[in-house]
Amino acid sequence: MASNDDPARTDPMVRPRYTGLASFMRMPYRSLDQGGWDGVEIGLIGVPFDGGVTNRPGARHGPREIRNQSSFIRKINQATGIAPHDLCTVADLGDAWIEKPFELKGALDEIAAFFAQVHAQGITPLSAGGDHAITLPILRAIAHERPLGLIHFDAHCDTGDDYLGSKLHHGVPFRRAVEEGLLDPKRCIQIGIRGSVNELDQWAFSHEQGMRVIYIEEFYELGVAGVIAEAQRVIGTGPAYVSFDVDGLDPVYAPGTGTPEVGGFSTLEAQLMLRGLSGLDLVGGDVVEVSPPFDPTGNTALVGATMMFEILCLLAEARAAR
Amino acid sequence: MASNDDPARTDPMVRPRYTGLASFMRMPYRSLDQGGWDGVEIGLIGVPFDGGVTNRPGARHGPREIRNQSSFIRKINQATGIAPHDLCTVADLGDAWIEKPFELKGALDEIAAFFAQVHAQGITPLSAGGDHAITLPILRAIAHERPLGLIHFDAHCDTGDDYLGSKLHHGVPFRRAVEEGLLDPKRCIQIGIRGSVNELDQWAFSHEQGMRVIYIEEFYELGVAGVIAEAQRVIGTGPAYVSFDVDGLDPVYAPGTGTPEVGGFSTLEAQLMLRGLSGLDLVGGDVVEVSPPFDPTGNTALVGATMMFEILCLLAEARAAR
Amino acid sequence: MASNDDPARTDPMVRPRYTGLASFMRMPYRSLDQGGWDGVEIGLIGVPFDGGVTNRPGARHGPREIRNQSSFIRKINQATGIAPHDLCTVADLGDAWIEKPFELKGALDEIAAFFAQVHAQGITPLSAGGDHAITLPILRAIAHERPLGLIHFDAHCDTGDDYLGSKLHHGVPFRRAVEEGLLDPKRCIQIGIRGSVNELDQWAFSHEQGMRVIYIEEFYELGVAGVIAEAQRVIGTGPAYVSFDVDGLDPVYAPGTGTPEVGGFSTLEAQLMLRGLSGLDLVGGDVVEVSPPFDPTGNTALVGATMMFEILCLLAEARAAR
Amino acid sequence: MASNDDPARTDPMVRPRYTGLASFMRMPYRSLDQGGWDGVEIGLIGVPFDGGVTNRPGARHGPREIRNQSSFIRKINQATGIAPHDLCTVADLGDAWIEKPFELKGALDEIAAFFAQVHAQGITPLSAGGDHAITLPILRAIAHERPLGLIHFDAHCDTGDDYLGSKLHHGVPFRRAVEEGLLDPKRCIQIGIRGSVNELDQWAFSHEQGMRVIYIEEFYELGVAGVIAEAQRVIGTGPAYVSFDVDGLDPVYAPGTGTPEVGGFSTLEAQLMLRGLSGLDLVGGDVVEVSPPFDPTGNTALVGATMMFEILCLLAEARAAR
Amino acid sequence: MASNDDPARTDPMVRPRYTGLASFMRMPYRSLDQGGWDGVEIGLIGVPFDGGVTNRPGARHGPREIRNQSSFIRKINQATGIAPHDLCTVADLGDAWIEKPFELKGALDEIAAFFAQVHAQGITPLSAGGDHAITLPILRAIAHERPLGLIHFDAHCDTGDDYLGSKLHHGVPFRRAVEEGLLDPKRCIQIGIRGSVNELDQWAFSHEQGMRVIYIEEFYELGVAGVIAEAQRVIGTGPAYVSFDVDGLDPVYAPGTGTPEVGGFSTLEAQLMLRGLSGLDLVGGDVVEVSPPFDPTGNTALVGATMMFEILCLLAEARAAR
Amino acid sequence: MASNDDPARTDPMVRPRYTGLASFMRMPYRSLDQGGWDGVEIGLIGVPFDGGVTNRPGARHGPREIRNQSSFIRKINQATGIAPHDLCTVADLGDAWIEKPFELKGALDEIAAFFAQVHAQGITPLSAGGDHAITLPILRAIAHERPLGLIHFDAHCDTGDDYLGSKLHHGVPFRRAVEEGLLDPKRCIQIGIRGSVNELDQWAFSHEQGMRVIYIEEFYELGVAGVIAEAQRVIGTGPAYVSFDVDGLDPVYAPGTGTPEVGGFSTLEAQLMLRGLSGLDLVGGDVVEVSPPFDPTGNTALVGATMMFEILCLLAEARAAR
Repeated sequence: MASNDDPARTDPMVRPRYTGLASFMRMPYRSLDQGGWDGVEIGLIGVPFDGGVTNRPGARHGPREIRNQSSFIRKINQATGIAPHDLCTVADLGDAWIEKPFELKGALDEIAAFFAQVHAQGITPLSAGGDHAITLPILRAIAHERPLGLIHFDAHCDTGDDYLGSKLHHGVPFRRAVEEGLLDPKRCIQIGIRGSVNELDQWAFSHEQGMRVIYIEEFYELGVAGVIAEAQRVIGTGPAYVSFDVDGLDPVYAPGTGTPEVGGFSTLEAQLMLRGLSGLDLVGGDVVEVSPPFDPTGNTALVGATMMFEILCLLAEARAAR
Repeated sequence: MASNDDPARTDPMVRPRYTGLASFMRMPYRSLDQGGWDGVEIGLIGVPFDGGVTNRPGARHGPREIRNQSSFIRKINQATGIAPHDLCTVADLGDAWIEKPFELKGALDEIAAFFAQVHAQGITPLSAGGDHAITLPILRAIAHERPLGLIHFDAHCDTGDDYLGSKLHHGVPFRRAVEEGLLDPKRCIQIGIRGSVNELDQWAFSHEQGMRVIYIEEFYELGVAGVIAEAQRVIGTGPAYVSFDVDGLDPVYAPGTGTPEVGGFSTLEAQLMLRGLSGLDLVGGDVVEVSPPFDPTGNTALVGATMMFEILCLLAEARAAR
Repeated sequence: MASNDDPARTDPMVRPRYTGLASFMRMPYRSLDQGGWDGVEIGLIGVPFDGGVTNRPGARHGPREIRNQSSFIRKINQATGIAPHDLCTVADLGDAWIEKPFELKGALDEIAAFFAQVHAQGITPLSAGGDHAITLPILRAIAHERPLGLIHFDAHCDTGDDYLGSKLHHGVPFRRAVEEGLLDPKRCIQIGIRGSVNELDQWAFSHEQGMRVIYIEEFYELGVAGVIAEAQRVIGTGPAYVSFDVDGLDPVYAPGTGTPEVGGFSTLEAQLMLRGLSGLDLVGGDVVEVSPPFDPTGNTALVGATMMFEILCLLAEARAAR
Repeated sequence: MASNDDPARTDPMVRPRYTGLASFMRMPYRSLDQGGWDGVEIGLIGVPFDGGVTNRPGARHGPREIRNQSSFIRKINQATGIAPHDLCTVADLGDAWIEKPFELKGALDEIAAFFAQVHAQGITPLSAGGDHAITLPILRAIAHERPLGLIHFDAHCDTGDDYLGSKLHHGVPFRRAVEEGLLDPKRCIQIGIRGSVNELDQWAFSHEQGMRVIYIEEFYELGVAGVIAEAQRVIGTGPAYVSFDVDGLDPVYAPGTGTPEVGGFSTLEAQLMLRGLSGLDLVGGDVVEVSPPFDPTGNTALVGATMMFEILCLLAEARAAR
Repeated sequence: MASNDDPARTDPMVRPRYTGLASFMRMPYRSLDQGGWDGVEIGLIGVPFDGGVTNRPGARHGPREIRNQSSFIRKINQATGIAPHDLCTVADLGDAWIEKPFELKGALDEIAAFFAQVHAQGITPLSAGGDHAITLPILRAIAHERPLGLIHFDAHCDTGDDYLGSKLHHGVPFRRAVEEGLLDPKRCIQIGIRGSVNELDQWAFSHEQGMRVIYIEEFYELGVAGVIAEAQRVIGTGPAYVSFDVDGLDPVYAPGTGTPEVGGFSTLEAQLMLRGLSGLDLVGGDVVEVSPPFDPTGNTALVGATMMFEILCLLAEARAAR
Repeated sequence: MASNDDPARTDPMVRPRYTGLASFMRMPYRSLDQGGWDGVEIGLIGVPFDGGVTNRPGARHGPREIRNQSSFIRKINQATGIAPHDLCTVADLGDAWIEKPFELKGALDEIAAFFAQVHAQGITPLSAGGDHAITLPILRAIAHERPLGLIHFDAHCDTGDDYLGSKLHHGVPFRRAVEEGLLDPKRCIQIGIRGSVNELDQWAFSHEQGMRVIYIEEFYELGVAGVIAEAQRVIGTGPAYVSFDVDGLDPVYAPGTGTPEVGGFSTLEAQLMLRGLSGLDLVGGDVVEVSPPFDPTGNTALVGATMMFEILCLLAEARAAR
């Protein structure tokens, strides 16, 4: 009989993709009080917070719309052959939402506390922002034992300084993370940097700390293969984190974002670069700055979901190899 | 400690509304294999099917977007004081999606089978379409014991005849339902009818069967209170079903629909009319024809969710009174 | 056999409405060199010209998008029972486009010449603009024998004066028409006037000439029935023209227009007022100022097509009664 | 010679409305260091802050887009004959932007300090938000000498309580204002209240304090004239403030807002109600919650600008009468 | 005299492009009962059918919007110098619409019957879908005498298998065509394949049959010239068909489609590849999967029209060379 | 105290970018009667005129929306290190709007007169259109002493001939400029040309005059570096002008334009090419054909602002070097 729960239907990945509640990549929803986290190896987590933006808000709506568009994602990476769900148990852990969103510092502490729980369970986190400020508390939760390397796709180094009276905002997470010993700057690479600036050496901190900055002009010269080689060289064999800000892409691929900078790389180039990170010991990742109110076609969220899937494959491969 | 599952957070209705997975009105998700239906009294059900449309498609995407916008809905009807969740156990039962969507007749049979299960559990169904063709299989599942009355908001009577080679489509469910003895035409009222037609007496079936047809011009004359009185008179004390096609509203309130007809009633008028159905013995309802691809602001889905909530209050009140 | 030209398919009005080339209301396309105008009694004509606008352009794209949306229109007016195609031979005569659009005066002369041909054939014109400047050359073509009455729906009286160095623009056609003896100001009624103004008596010409101006506040007081009575009184038994500027509607019904003014009447009110013109000796009409680039949902064009149909019914009835 | 500064062009109000920098209603831009505030009687002020929203953000972009759309506004109110610029010197004072936007409490203090300067100069403020939280610091600046009356258009009373860990947010300004003695609750009227609620008596504070709450159902019964009479009665002869939240309107008129509630009043009804406040001793006003990212047609900002103009006329009339 | 039918105006290609009824590339409209097909050598045909889609619908609206945007296309291919209208008589044959759209199998039979008529007249068909399922009946009509080669641009091989209970849908046409002997798999090339999959060897049929599959990664390596060489090699001298699914392009170029896959080729790359097919014996072609409801800027339809023009040039050249 | 005019706030470039009135790149607004032009070296000027378009209008709205999006631009070019505001005094000079926009010839004369004033003050103009017709009067104002070289990015050579009865329109400015001796055709380069044409040698004038035309196919072959070398060679050491029509970009980067042509270069390629013009003696520039009504995401205007900034850096560098 045709029932909603017919065994023939138990695989949500083969149902029509417009049906059902939208969880990340149609994975099972497992919150602490619904299903619990036991056995989960990679957790897909929304962080609906945009209290750190300095210009256009809306990334708080990112997780929900990325979930919606992520129904387009199927099980296996056709390009690499990686089947993440065969390698690891993956679940949608829900949102690390914030109880007190009106205080930036406190909100980031709440995010850190949530990810500390995830980390305590031995779950590898893959998050959907929210603005880039959320990466700092994630790193606080998972990198406090030892500094991580970083592969960072973005138009901005996000190693600025205090702005608008705050030490914390979405333009500064990686400076704070280096200052707090959560990142090893020598093992950090930042790819796609560009845009006009208000100080000639806007990203002096990155340069001074020895982070490898690949401006978009160098990207254009090196090509994808060259950038991959450089990323492999910089990161080496230690543990590392991948952070993908969709404004690293040209705004035509990701108009729904807070601080668009004209003249970025393409989605195909991003996918190829991400796949080139294969073999690195990746311990977590995120896709941030998807702002649905500025995204009339939904393509930014679809791109965000696609990049999450590429990172999921990397995380699953790395975890299975550990 | 700030956790995703802190007792202080167990009421999803008080969380920020942009957070978490989108279930209907933030109700718990209860599928047959996830949580089960035991104890559920009113089931919120998506029917993501638009295989019956004759013009613009897209209503298959309706349930997901109505779920998304329904996060705006809170617990209690401020105008009537009805608190449906205090009166009944309400849950999101997931989607009655179709395994074989390419065959219209078979698809409707699948929908009927799903709703037969719901009905067998004694659950009152409140559905989100999908196109209006879905109301026929719902009625087949819940009205086969005795004909129901009908309060039907729409620009079209949907009592046409075969079209484009098919006895089944979204312009004919109520004719078929009367023919199959599922509706008592004398206890049917159709409100908001308008638009140009290809035959002078396009809705002859309604007239011949004694259904009460309130054209938009008569609505304009009677006013909301007059229409309510007429609906109460026509339906009387027997069991009845409410079907709300969003194209009954003027297209400015619901541009995201398949067959818009200029010159309809307003959302406030719709809400007042729905509230005027208080006291009727309502046994089910639906909101249909929300087509998100034609709805750039999302207002149509928000309207759909709002009308579902008004009907939920009626169903809860009626069920509690039984 | 299933062919595109099967006799069973010869009625384009019953085909799915998204199919085929978009002519006005799916009427046959009859240009002078394709089919010719012989026998046509009412001609549907596009005037894709917006060289008279003073603010937002785009009405040049109006005829094509109104044609597109007009596929929603069926054969018969359900509210009045009028079947215009039974009363008159109706055809889409194509566009009165302009050979030299860069000269406003010359362009209006070209439009006048086109409509003179239409008038010479005894065809009643029903036009889709284009901006409101086009009504002046239409009147020059069809009203030069005797002044007409005018029923004019608009937010503006369009009886201003020279602006930006020009005697001709979309804010002045009715002043020029009165000055040229094409309209009898005592038989003119202007409905829906509102908005802020730069001169206290912005529409002094209307007042001085004795045109009946119904500001939106008076509309609100009189109601639809009162306005109809006033229109019937003012126009009386002589020949008259109907001009419907979509900015008379509230901008929510017609956002796609050049000079929106918040606080207008609704589409249903417009339809009821138009139907109230039944019995008048109408000899032509137009719907103007639909600007598709400002109309993301297409509703403005759908409204334009719907109002054209209401006017078509009036013109057919009047012509059949003559 | 044709120059940008030709005397014939010195009146920006008669230039084409798409030209030039967008100041509020094309008024001169007068900041403290550009032109200064000397002689200004009514100041148009942007408050680009949305740090108090609990759901959809974006109102920080409101002032700029309201300025853009306000170019549609001309000099004189056609309906009332009021010419505000003849009665008072009006200028665009720029934005009361916030130096430290990441701290809600501090940000509101900054806003208050800005408006204290305005108030010290004897300027009547008319503000464009920003979210509704901004009204509290405005009242702190201008109402500390004596409590004001309040005419408040909104879907929500905004007299809630702590939410998400904060005493301050956009759902509570009027409770705090009453608590701080800035408003006389007996002289407050709140119009258009509706929507589902999480507590049966969501607005208990309003009721307990004796504020006059007109729910949308009562509005529907009383009609515009009845509401005006009630507003005049409640406010009486003392000084009062007008606060217009665009979510009081039905979402079709104002989709670009943070917390839409289906089933509101229309723009025409709003205009008529505002005009009905003529004669009151109004000392300030605001239009809030215009969120351009959710407003694809720009109509919400146009509506916001139009309501600002209606309030400007009231303020000018009241100030001239003092 | 300025007339709509002045000899000076008989070339619709030089009129302003926003004027007139929208036929494909402003070609004359020639249906069997309007003008007939005599003498037509290449027929531009709409197939407004999306009954084969498995996710987002809307391609039924494709032909009309492609017609609309195709007014941007002029007479001659500037890059290649090909003037298709000088080489062949080209006409818009109208739509192969379906009488019974609710039955997928029957609908495809109707399409086949329409194209059999076209084929019987010796007309080379160039079609605008509609979803990709329509290519199967087209091939049934024109390839039954001998198998064709295929140049296929797409993100998907569309050689899947039964899905959702149906042997027929938009993911399977080329498997069925090979099975039916309509395509010679050794002379098939599929370009742009990518995206996540549910089975590791999703396109096993293509591989097993010896179809040449160029995944997007290989495309990135080979470059346009390499792909052209490969296509020329695979197709050789026999007759072949070109099928262009717009989802082969990156979604930024074609957001309006049913199954977008991030990371595709660009329009310029597509144009260069199509031009590289010069010299092949092409006997028909199509552009499919344009879904206007998901295309707010209209760019997808413009791209579709542009690709149709590139294919038209190839077809005209091939036919003239035969 | 926190004031709008606190010294700490006097640099508008560090304020949140959504605040304040939108001037070009947040530069001071200096009109002849507000601040005057004394000391200005580079003037940013809007030309809100689209009376020369032959298809889609709307570029009249370009300057205002480019101003709005240009708030994203910061002080310094990160890629080149050029800090234009350190090199030259830059100001927003307002709009060269037209008093008599209804006459194309007269309107262009008015524009020329405005720019003659700018030129007489020794100010280097950088303009935002408006359609491409505006470049002719700009050149008349600044190139009459000696012919200039031209670097022209566009999909069209704009060296056509009379069209629609006019010698002046947006497809002909560079022909007229050569004919009037304002440009030295041997020192002109046109980059990105493509699209279908109505005459085989559509741009015969360019070829005959010896202008260097780089069709998009040659661009694809040469690459950015090759095009830069060619531009440097063609222009040499004499004075030159840069004209950037956004339709030179692929329409995905600039959908908001009047005559989109599929298959153009990318924004990054455009930026790299512009930077490659360093060292040329540039005396003026413009960005034209941004049409906001066709630009739902605003990306076209953001791209326009970004290209203006690249040109500003070139102009500042050249002027400082003189």
